[in-house]
Amino acid sequence: MVATLNGHTMTGGDGLGSYSRNSDYQRSIIDAAKLHIQRAVAENLQPENFTTLETFSIADLGCSVGPNTFFAVQNILDSVKLKYKTHEPNTKIPEFHVFFNDHSLNDFNTLFKCLPSNREYYASGVPGSFYSRLFLRASVHFVHSSYSLQWLSQVPKEVININSPAWNKGKIYHTREEVTKAYSSQHAVDMASFLCARADEVVPGGLVAIVIPARPNGIPHAQLRMNMLFDLFGSCLLELSNKGLINEEKVDLFNIPIYCTSPQELEAVIQQNGCFSIESMESLPIVTAPDTGFQDASMRLRVITEELIKEHFGPEILDELFNLFTNKLAEAHQDSALGTIFNLFLLLKRETYTNS
Amino acid sequence: MVATLNGHTMTGGDGLGSYSRNSDYQRSIIDAAKLHIQRAVAENLQPENFTTLETFSIADLGCSVGPNTFFAVQNILDSVKLKYKTHEPNTKIPEFHVFFNDHSLNDFNTLFKCLPSNREYYASGVPGSFYSRLFLRASVHFVHSSYSLQWLSQVPKEVININSPAWNKGKIYHTREEVTKAYSSQHAVDMASFLCARADEVVPGGLVAIVIPARPNGIPHAQLRMNMLFDLFGSCLLELSNKGLINEEKVDLFNIPIYCTSPQELEAVIQQNGCFSIESMESLPIVTAPDTGFQDASMRLRVITEELIKEHFGPEILDELFNLFTNKLAEAHQDSALGTIFNLFLLLKRETYTNS
Repeated sequence: MVATLNGHTMTGGDGLGSYSRNSDYQRSIIDAAKLHIQRAVAENLQPENFTTLETFSIADLGCSVGPNTFFAVQNILDSVKLKYKTHEPNTKIPEFHVFFNDHSLNDFNTLFKCLPSNREYYASGVPGSFYSRLFLRASVHFVHSSYSLQWLSQVPKEVININSPAWNKGKIYHTREEVTKAYSSQHAVDMASFLCARADEVVPGGLVAIVIPARPNGIPHAQLRMNMLFDLFGSCLLELSNKGLINEEKVDLFNIPIYCTSPQELEAVIQQNGCFSIESMESLPIVTAPDTGFQDASMRLRVITEELIKEHFGPEILDELFNLFTNKLAEAHQDSALGTIFNLFLLLKRETYTNS
Repeated sequence: MVATLNGHTMTGGDGLGSYSRNSDYQRSIIDAAKLHIQRAVAENLQPENFTTLETFSIADLGCSVGPNTFFAVQNILDSVKLKYKTHEPNTKIPEFHVFFNDHSLNDFNTLFKCLPSNREYYASGVPGSFYSRLFLRASVHFVHSSYSLQWLSQVPKEVININSPAWNKGKIYHTREEVTKAYSSQHAVDMASFLCARADEVVPGGLVAIVIPARPNGIPHAQLRMNMLFDLFGSCLLELSNKGLINEEKVDLFNIPIYCTSPQELEAVIQQNGCFSIESMESLPIVTAPDTGFQDASMRLRVITEELIKEHFGPEILDELFNLFTNKLAEAHQDSALGTIFNLFLLLKRETYTNS
């Protein structure tokens, strides 16, 4: 996954505290989207419009270190093979090239070590932000991105500017309208960059499948489970600051660069880009992480935020911070509802070239 | 660089004992080949024969961790840009994609961290042995490989078979005729695999530039500097074995999977493959590593063999082994000539498709 200008990565390696061992929730999202992907390929891919039937390129943007990306990619590949077999029975199954993309600080060594040995594709790692160009013009047939596009390219500048009305003192996430506006604008800018880059890279008729945690139209951000979790997490940081373990100003300057967009907001930015048709935009069945205790729930947040925290506060506070968070999670669970969870599946199709 | 079936990599990271800090000799080879590459592109590339002038893909096979690969790639890219500017003045400079290939255990994290920030190309890391397919059919315009194809895909099986006449007891390199024959056969098999894979991947009219340490036709292997060095290095292992620090049988089973082929041998395997024309095959000007002492010379061997030694003997013997080697180098330098150094530049052009 990619975030902040200098990039933000999941915890690498394959140890007990690694993303690869603590991404069961992200895996369940990929499973939930499996049928949507299969249908997308079956109904929306028209190989006869491609300039060649011999090769097919897939990109997974924000792949992290595996193994989830391998399941997602295999599902796409199987779906495409099935489509070719039924739709183009007289042609050979194409050769596949899969591009695994994530920020350049991502642990690609672990990713490459774990590549399935029986894979039916040529594999590449592509380091860099997916908010900019990553591939040659008109070279990718299927772009996939699961649980990555909620990461902003950076914390919105206004929220760390003491002179701005969006100055986010004492909070690490958006709870006030001005702050939410700044987050929303940043996400719109980022999505515009994302679509602009993909418009260049995806072949005409090629597909872009996106899965993201989102916000149903009309539901306030405050009701989202993610907002509640980050609010709770922020209170842990404040508590450490009150204890004098971390600097208050540092907490003021720390913000989680994640935003849950809505279908409405997405439609606006896709229309403005003008290169893609929306083939599908639907909510995924609700999945919840297996209830293996608050310790595990805390670890799931840790593996996606650890690098951010380390960079900002240093590594010393990590254990105490997440112990505190585990305890607060346990308390909150008894007292309050968990908030709304809403995951969106979005399928875009590249129209004929108009702006490249 | 790629070697042995399980892969063999240079020492990773960017510390004092890393390949990236101890590959000045390999860098000087790239510098020595610079003009050859420029001439190859100027004289042998005919963009008008490509199906598109919009994109251009370059692959560096056996790239290791950098920075040498970046210099080599930039030289190719500049040469291609110049060619397009002069030869196709009415078309835009193409977009470039560079594929950095090495074995999957290579330290790609370091490579990606060091990618030039002002690069004019999209970058991918491609894990896997270059003795097999790595890329889509007809997708690469220029393949480059410097100082990598001397690494065999594996130690020839006969030399570690006690019942074979090529059983290489007490030696780590080929000094007897039967052993040399086994090495030579393995290299021919590997080169055939290499050419077969590249024949599929390189576009018609695309180029393959190879730089390797080689053996002039008619010169015995024993006169090569590399053979002398490995003989000396083998004697250090035997000495440690005599001291009881390592097991004698382990030394018998240890062999360096490197072979210096000759122009004659190369021509035979290229002709047999039948997909490439030899556009150029010439020796490079002799370059010697800067004379910074035997310690540095020893380190240069260490960074390319350390992983092999570790895997076979364990890491404990590394320091003593290379200290001994440093001392032996110092003695040998006074007593004997350094042996023949011969580096070959080979330029192949992909003919029209005949066997793919």
